[in-house]
Amino acid sequence: MKVVKFGGSSLASGKQIEKVFQIVLSDMERKVVVVSAPGKRFAADHKVTDLLIECAEQCLLNLDSRELYERIIERYSSIAKELKVSDEVIKDIEDDLLGRLNGDKSQPAEFMDLVKASGEDNHAKLVAAYFQQQGVEAHYVNPKDAGLFVSPDPGNAQVLPESYDMLYALNERSGILIFPGFFGYSKEGKVYTFSRSGSDVTGSILANGLKVNLYENFTDVDAVYSVNPSIVGCPKEVKVLTYREMRELSYAGFTVLHDEALVPAFKAGIPVQIKNTNNPLAPGTRIVSERDNTNGPVIGIASDHGFCSIYVSKYLMNREVGFGRKLLAILESFGLSYEHIPSGIDDISIILRENQFTASMETEIKNRIEIELHTDEVVIERGLALIMVVGEGMRHNIGTTAKASKALAEANVNIEMINQGSSEVSMMFGVKEVDEKRAVRALYEEFFAAVTV
Amino acid sequence: MKVVKFGGSSLASGKQIEKVFQIVLSDMERKVVVVSAPGKRFAADHKVTDLLIECAEQCLLNLDSRELYERIIERYSSIAKELKVSDEVIKDIEDDLLGRLNGDKSQPAEFMDLVKASGEDNHAKLVAAYFQQQGVEAHYVNPKDAGLFVSPDPGNAQVLPESYDMLYALNERSGILIFPGFFGYSKEGKVYTFSRSGSDVTGSILANGLKVNLYENFTDVDAVYSVNPSIVGCPKEVKVLTYREMRELSYAGFTVLHDEALVPAFKAGIPVQIKNTNNPLAPGTRIVSERDNTNGPVIGIASDHGFCSIYVSKYLMNREVGFGRKLLAILESFGLSYEHIPSGIDDISIILRENQFTASMETEIKNRIEIELHTDEVVIERGLALIMVVGEGMRHNIGTTAKASKALAEANVNIEMINQGSSEVSMMFGVKEVDEKRAVRALYEEFFAAVTV
Repeated sequence: MKVVKFGGSSLASGKQIEKVFQIVLSDMERKVVVVSAPGKRFAADHKVTDLLIECAEQCLLNLDSRELYERIIERYSSIAKELKVSDEVIKDIEDDLLGRLNGDKSQPAEFMDLVKASGEDNHAKLVAAYFQQQGVEAHYVNPKDAGLFVSPDPGNAQVLPESYDMLYALNERSGILIFPGFFGYSKEGKVYTFSRSGSDVTGSILANGLKVNLYENFTDVDAVYSVNPSIVGCPKEVKVLTYREMRELSYAGFTVLHDEALVPAFKAGIPVQIKNTNNPLAPGTRIVSERDNTNGPVIGIASDHGFCSIYVSKYLMNREVGFGRKLLAILESFGLSYEHIPSGIDDISIILRENQFTASMETEIKNRIEIELHTDEVVIERGLALIMVVGEGMRHNIGTTAKASKALAEANVNIEMINQGSSEVSMMFGVKEVDEKRAVRALYEEFFAAVTV
Repeated sequence: MKVVKFGGSSLASGKQIEKVFQIVLSDMERKVVVVSAPGKRFAADHKVTDLLIECAEQCLLNLDSRELYERIIERYSSIAKELKVSDEVIKDIEDDLLGRLNGDKSQPAEFMDLVKASGEDNHAKLVAAYFQQQGVEAHYVNPKDAGLFVSPDPGNAQVLPESYDMLYALNERSGILIFPGFFGYSKEGKVYTFSRSGSDVTGSILANGLKVNLYENFTDVDAVYSVNPSIVGCPKEVKVLTYREMRELSYAGFTVLHDEALVPAFKAGIPVQIKNTNNPLAPGTRIVSERDNTNGPVIGIASDHGFCSIYVSKYLMNREVGFGRKLLAILESFGLSYEHIPSGIDDISIILRENQFTASMETEIKNRIEIELHTDEVVIERGLALIMVVGEGMRHNIGTTAKASKALAEANVNIEMINQGSSEVSMMFGVKEVDEKRAVRALYEEFFAAVTV
């Protein structure tokens, strides 16, 4: 059995939903279908989830939300019309959404989650109605009835472990099950959503709970590419990669799949197949626990910018038990999470994402470090990019570092920082943002293009 | 003015002290002479400090220490005889040492420091007597009178900041000042020693306090070498290097100078000259704040083994504010200091010195990390060596990493870990211990020998 999840663009119009129907019907194993809210039909279109957020905000401000409400309903009814599904389901959707919008607003974050979640919940009903109208046994599944319980954290719910056992019972239901993504219920029966793009998470939880063979994630790209196509034209597609490789790549800008989405599948060792709704015959990319290394040591190159570093030096720092811990505690007291901590003997750098690090914070943190840790020097550098060279095959491949650093040197890129852990699934280079694209191209050339010369 | 410090082997015999006398007299600037206790005259000889430690231990155990006492006195009197210095000073030394050995033993660590410090203190008296006998105005200086105050930490005293101002007054004294190294006095008037080889520290404190132009440190090597001569034959001598470079090299096995010794000189920006008592015309090595980079990006290659790594992986570790701090706090609670913390996205390694990390600690720490931090995997690897490629010139030299990693790849050395901080004074490679020497030779060949081909 397979769990199949479709993203917003795969369900944005009647035409897209027809494709989804064909895809599901073409494989008897595809029994559980996780749906997102309707996404964009064209670049300038709005996602239903965005409309719902705006609508909920208006309600919370006591402003008139009627126009937004109608735009949302219009999205569903235009799809229903296109698919010739009876108006009854649209009436259900209207009642449901109105009920939510008129609900309790004393806890704004909870209200927001309740409204947001309607995008997936109502679309699941519509998709189920279409399947039924096509003569297929299909049922909308309410996550509360199915036992998808989550922690009561608005916008950042975490699945509760007991859900997995409850969800296993879905195996006994007949027909195709249409399951809304993105949210679950607290033990008190309230709706809480996962973080944004959380339908991927729902699919992964169901895959784990139902103990299926495969979790198929349909999106709008043919595959995961070995490098960002906006930096290198027509890059190589990745056929198979491991969870760890996917995670390292997605960290630095590969956004095909929601980060947290892999966790439940990873824990159950269930492979995840990325496929394209608009080109279902393309093989796509499979994410697995282990792969053979026949494709060379490197599987992909990712990069991301907007990083900064806090460089701290203190003579004999190395002798001071507790120095690093104290330094990290100062950052933690500002709620900052760090990315990496490369260190020399008497110096240590902390790499963080720049967006969380305001100018006023910068001054305050610099002062606290200088005063509390009696440092010799604290220097903050902004405008850094991190480049990840990722591949399980690097683990014991002598010379990968040499190849990578030679390629960067020849492209005249100065390496500001290198961080290679014992894990050796990835090698990280810190460079200045202005050098980012040149560096990525040089590395791609070295590890992928060179072979074909 | 210069502060000149002589190590134990430079003062081990009358003949050596004659050399010291010639060196001091040959330069009018050499006004303050810091002396160590008599060191070894030949490989199988004993250092007086070692004899004193043994003697103090015997006393503390209420065992007969007479033989050791006599061997110590014999060292001084044989030197006095060789130098034809009057017996009077030996009587002084006998009285002094007997007084110490018969002193208060209720605080064993304090008693030990008092006895240990006599090695330098009494030798300073003997050296001063020889200078005087040669017709030179020279005075033994008592650190208590001079104002060298330290914290009351037996065997690990730290200079108190007010000492520097007090010591400045030594500028007004006439003649050559013979100052015993290795110890100072607490505010309560008790003797406390620096950590082992602490005479280097005394010299550096005096250089800072007296605001001299140069701190000359006479030892028994011609210079600091660019690599360990026991790994690479006849290595290049280093003429000038910075404090930071020296520190990074000494971290990984370059033991020419006591680590802490550089701090006071470094803080006052006073250059330190390493010279050879047995070959005083050799230029030696100068340690400075800044140097020009005409000698290429790399100044030296050092290596040390006996390291281990604790590898910790946890899916989405990166998202957890406080993970690194909690991990370091666990190690800190065992009193462990770490060396480096290279990290991937969801994994982090902690590199520590193996000698502090017992097998029972290993099990307990592994358990605590797994239980308290809910990690996916904790792997401990022993038998690692760290290789430091050091040089201020590496800072903005494109291609140094490429050269280093290519050399290692060609020598068939797998790089277990790379850590290059923003400071870029050094690049660190972690390799297996069995590969250490091969790796060092390959790097030396690449950065030093290649030029002469």
